[in-house]
Amino acid sequence: MGKVSWKPGTMVYPLPAVMVSCGTEEKGYNIITVSWTGTICTDPAMCYISVRPGRYSYDIIKDNGEFVINLTTRKLAYAADWCGVRSGADHDKFREMSLTPIPGTTVKAPLIAESPLNIECRVKEIVELGSHHMFISEVIAVNVDEELIDEKSGVYRLDKANLISYSHGKYYDLGKYLGHFGFSVKKGEKSRGKRDNNVNKKK
Amino acid sequence: MGKVSWKPGTMVYPLPAVMVSCGTEEKGYNIITVSWTGTICTDPAMCYISVRPGRYSYDIIKDNGEFVINLTTRKLAYAADWCGVRSGADHDKFREMSLTPIPGTTVKAPLIAESPLNIECRVKEIVELGSHHMFISEVIAVNVDEELIDEKSGVYRLDKANLISYSHGKYYDLGKYLGHFGFSVKKGEKSRGKRDNNVNKKK
Repeated sequence: MGKVSWKPGTMVYPLPAVMVSCGTEEKGYNIITVSWTGTICTDPAMCYISVRPGRYSYDIIKDNGEFVINLTTRKLAYAADWCGVRSGADHDKFREMSLTPIPGTTVKAPLIAESPLNIECRVKEIVELGSHHMFISEVIAVNVDEELIDEKSGVYRLDKANLISYSHGKYYDLGKYLGHFGFSVKKGEKSRGKRDNNVNKKK
Repeated sequence: MGKVSWKPGTMVYPLPAVMVSCGTEEKGYNIITVSWTGTICTDPAMCYISVRPGRYSYDIIKDNGEFVINLTTRKLAYAADWCGVRSGADHDKFREMSLTPIPGTTVKAPLIAESPLNIECRVKEIVELGSHHMFISEVIAVNVDEELIDEKSGVYRLDKANLISYSHGKYYDLGKYLGHFGFSVKKGEKSRGKRDNNVNKKK
């Protein structure tokens, strides 16, 4: 297990590759795909996206103080990649990728109907880190596909959504299921540490 | 594609589940597994972890201002889960999980030898968000397994490491390869937008 030491780099993987939708009017809607995203707080529910100030969506999100994170699936992989390398300055991304904008419940930014889960976010602070500025944001609503809610149990089956991952320049399906959170601890055993289990309840 | 609206929740997925090692002396080494982690800036390379102040590792990381992010693999899934639900107050996690601490190159916190990639981080700022505090950190070194560097090409094959993902309470392998960054754009076509491709160079 010999180790080679490298210069600093961005090597936290695998990450999501989410499509971030923004804009307040249909004419100005845009989508940018980012992997520099994640959860930063459980209560209140908060997340972030980091975006280069030169990107077309940057000013839109900064000016409006809101955006929507749309999770991506195998079916959306092509559109996700395309929305990451193309610019809204040159393209109407919703139209060219045949994506459907639908109204957010709390924000003017549109949800992408084809995404199984849409997270409405309000910007709390912009941290200018360097090449990227981080939008520290509060989650204000979550919208999920009805089809992924098990009719009998009411359980949300995100595991049926075929989400994709991004790792070191490559997109992947989620593969084999390895276990649930806490599987290493025998049933009934008490645990003192507790990681966040991220259970969502319907309104 | 009917949508159901939920209360705010932490639903950005899939995420990594990394083992964060900390401490400055072997006796005080600890490991905490977190999924609230990611890249926040490309240049300088920066990342974050969010941790509950009540967790045993919180004060260690706060006091020392440094930690190491160790990526996790199929082989490490059990240890990763266990280090997430157990507390360093009750357990010597390195010993009980048969993990090997090796010295960092720039930090006193240990690397986990069994992880294919270790990211040495220095805390720049702690943001008290709520249930979790975010450690905004600079990457100061990256250590990789020699075995994952292709002898002929020198290319780092993180895709051979069997990294795992965490999504909505479940751990998964990375599955089918779907394409590389930019696959949606024909070769030779110019793109105006540019997502970060995260290419690392050896020192």
